[in-house]
Amino acid sequence: MDDNKIFLSESEMPQAWYNINPDLPVPLKPPLHPGTGQPLGPADLAPLFPMALIEQEMSMERWIDIPDEVMDVLKIWRPSPLQRAFRLEKALGTPARIYYKNESVSPAGSHKPNTAVAQVYYNKQEGVQRITTETGAGQWGSALAFSCQTFDIPCEVYMVRVSYEQKPYRRLLMQTWGAECYPSPSDRTEAGRAILAEDPDSPGSLGMAISEAVELAAKDEGTKYSLGSVLNHVLLHQTITGLEMKKQFEIAGDYPDTIVGCVGGGSNFAGFCFPYLKEKMDGKRDIDIIAVEPTACPTLTRGLYSYDFGDTAEMTPLLKMLTLGHKFVPAAIHAGGLRYHGAAPQVSLLVKESVVEARAVAQTSVFEAALLFARTEGHLPAPETSHAIRVAIDEANKCKETGEEKCIVIGYSGHGHFDLGAYENYLSGNITDYALPQEEIDAAEQYLCNWE
Amino acid sequence: MDDNKIFLSESEMPQAWYNINPDLPVPLKPPLHPGTGQPLGPADLAPLFPMALIEQEMSMERWIDIPDEVMDVLKIWRPSPLQRAFRLEKALGTPARIYYKNESVSPAGSHKPNTAVAQVYYNKQEGVQRITTETGAGQWGSALAFSCQTFDIPCEVYMVRVSYEQKPYRRLLMQTWGAECYPSPSDRTEAGRAILAEDPDSPGSLGMAISEAVELAAKDEGTKYSLGSVLNHVLLHQTITGLEMKKQFEIAGDYPDTIVGCVGGGSNFAGFCFPYLKEKMDGKRDIDIIAVEPTACPTLTRGLYSYDFGDTAEMTPLLKMLTLGHKFVPAAIHAGGLRYHGAAPQVSLLVKESVVEARAVAQTSVFEAALLFARTEGHLPAPETSHAIRVAIDEANKCKETGEEKCIVIGYSGHGHFDLGAYENYLSGNITDYALPQEEIDAAEQYLCNWE
Repeated sequence: MDDNKIFLSESEMPQAWYNINPDLPVPLKPPLHPGTGQPLGPADLAPLFPMALIEQEMSMERWIDIPDEVMDVLKIWRPSPLQRAFRLEKALGTPARIYYKNESVSPAGSHKPNTAVAQVYYNKQEGVQRITTETGAGQWGSALAFSCQTFDIPCEVYMVRVSYEQKPYRRLLMQTWGAECYPSPSDRTEAGRAILAEDPDSPGSLGMAISEAVELAAKDEGTKYSLGSVLNHVLLHQTITGLEMKKQFEIAGDYPDTIVGCVGGGSNFAGFCFPYLKEKMDGKRDIDIIAVEPTACPTLTRGLYSYDFGDTAEMTPLLKMLTLGHKFVPAAIHAGGLRYHGAAPQVSLLVKESVVEARAVAQTSVFEAALLFARTEGHLPAPETSHAIRVAIDEANKCKETGEEKCIVIGYSGHGHFDLGAYENYLSGNITDYALPQEEIDAAEQYLCNWE
Repeated sequence: MDDNKIFLSESEMPQAWYNINPDLPVPLKPPLHPGTGQPLGPADLAPLFPMALIEQEMSMERWIDIPDEVMDVLKIWRPSPLQRAFRLEKALGTPARIYYKNESVSPAGSHKPNTAVAQVYYNKQEGVQRITTETGAGQWGSALAFSCQTFDIPCEVYMVRVSYEQKPYRRLLMQTWGAECYPSPSDRTEAGRAILAEDPDSPGSLGMAISEAVELAAKDEGTKYSLGSVLNHVLLHQTITGLEMKKQFEIAGDYPDTIVGCVGGGSNFAGFCFPYLKEKMDGKRDIDIIAVEPTACPTLTRGLYSYDFGDTAEMTPLLKMLTLGHKFVPAAIHAGGLRYHGAAPQVSLLVKESVVEARAVAQTSVFEAALLFARTEGHLPAPETSHAIRVAIDEANKCKETGEEKCIVIGYSGHGHFDLGAYENYLSGNITDYALPQEEIDAAEQYLCNWE
């Protein structure tokens, strides 16, 4: 098939999400209560999430039906195209076939609305009156703002301060969709005020912003909290991308040898590779599945596998995951969406079990790849997405050496229309590489929890 | 058909552009030489354009084949979706069906690459070594930068100063695609220096920027000039949108009663409505075709129908068109793409002949419509595009009163991802309406040319 884009019709969309929990190679350790250290029950999560999402979080059902009301909203932009990067292939002179699953076509410009729409729907069903959240680069916050607008629920977003200042357009996008957006740490919560008291110039982090958003939900009955990654219900909502992709590859008459995605919390990555994992684990298909992260925040490649908090203020449940420690404040690299100290327990476990390979890449090489992509394929990738593009190009270059005609697919998680400041820094030589010093990783250990 | 989006496959794309010249209701007056007042010959245009485009400019052939090399690039994003605005309809409570032809899916985010790709291709064929152009909001400049990158030709863009300052991201987008971008008036040309000598703080205008870009092409043999609107070859390249739309409406089992598009120079509007005009003029279909412009730059609704220059410095051929006079400097409204003093001769003639209806709308009502669209359909429209959305909403509201179930289609020319500064001004109450005073229109007459 010589088409640049493989589309599905709306009627061909998957009707159920895929839940990987029953198919993991070893059982997942349960989340623990932050106070007692005991496994969490549904009641422990009820102050934060509607019950339907808690059920999904703990579900061992392989397939979970997508409600019609969610499908109706997803169809504004879904199914998203699977695109062939003919021009990039040609520029590289590679025999590899490179595809990208283009999630940038959503209103918010990324994969994030796939779960935001579902989460807001379930909150609406249970009569929730306000939703709070945190956001890094602003992708998640704008996705939730869009979704809350759609279902008419007020939305309050705590945005990592460094991104709030670097990316005013993302904030404006949230406001255009009717959300309130505050730089975090803020003075609106106890958690925020405590951080500001210690460091009034704190650049913020996802961990801090989570503390603020969670605190507001925990304290007010009509308010719930919404998380854009890490948790199982988020991961499974994202599998619509991989499930669509499988159908699209069938139409294309092709099958991926290598799947590459960037990992912040892990939901983008999980969404488009989990539907392929069972075939790999069952030995039916030989697929390389590569998770890519920045050298400045090397959670998967250098983090410790331990129970840890999801937030800085130690309010969230403890999750068994790869982590740099919940006190970790990452350098202000531009890929704000990849600045999280932990990673989804499912993704962490799959890396530990060597089902998924993790790689860390440096900033300048990421922007070099982004520029090559933009100058060949036209579309401007987000810095986060460009981490995956970097590794896809590396893999395609290997094929050039070996002559292998591999099929490589990139999880194209979002566009870079609101990241041109980062491009400007790169074009003017103001981006440098940063690898996390080993001392910082060693220091994390003191904060980790030894409960097992 | 209940789908939100109607797609065509790449193989269903139109294979030829539609040239309206042979189908106009009265013959078009020829362009005149600025020095002699005589009708232009191909040789007069040769310093500026490659011969293939000059032939298209003057062609009386109804159909012009699209070269394979152009199709290959267009297929990165084309065919673009025709989308049904179910949520907007519901919010309005209208019995009308509202569709939008979504040209925002191109790499540059607008319809502009449709002609930029074609123009750069023909320049490449004739060995051109550099292409210059002007840009208003930056949509055209970024489209040309993308296309020049694709065919590997250096690109120099003169950007209206007020937009250059308001929209740094558009400039960065051009630079990311390898183009050089200068604020106009600049000190790089005689035309620019003359304007700056009179007014060092000139906000610039499309007319001024055209003078600069044209001057560079006229003076250097290896350099040609590329225009993003107004001329016939540009209009016909854009008809791919209307031709696709006709096929998409066939699939949807629907047919437009009302077609609404914004007009700057007229190419977006021409592109998606010209393919419908013959049926209207032949009396086969009763279609309302509405061209929308800002009250601050009311070329079609209040301009004079006369020969006039396309630029401020009187270097371009004279075109018979609706015009506010080539010395007109429009107010710095945010829809930079709609700030041109003239309009395509074909569009002007169709307005004069009452085949096309022209309407002017005020800024605040435009942003009100933009916000309603963003909050219902999710996608964020460009301010230019929102002019058309405003009138589509007005028409849909009329249907609510009359009970008519009209089919209304919007030319969704581009997204507003780089226009959030304008949205911020609207959200904070800093946008005011402006109607051009009659004195300014009267004053234009002294500059017009009476050659017939």
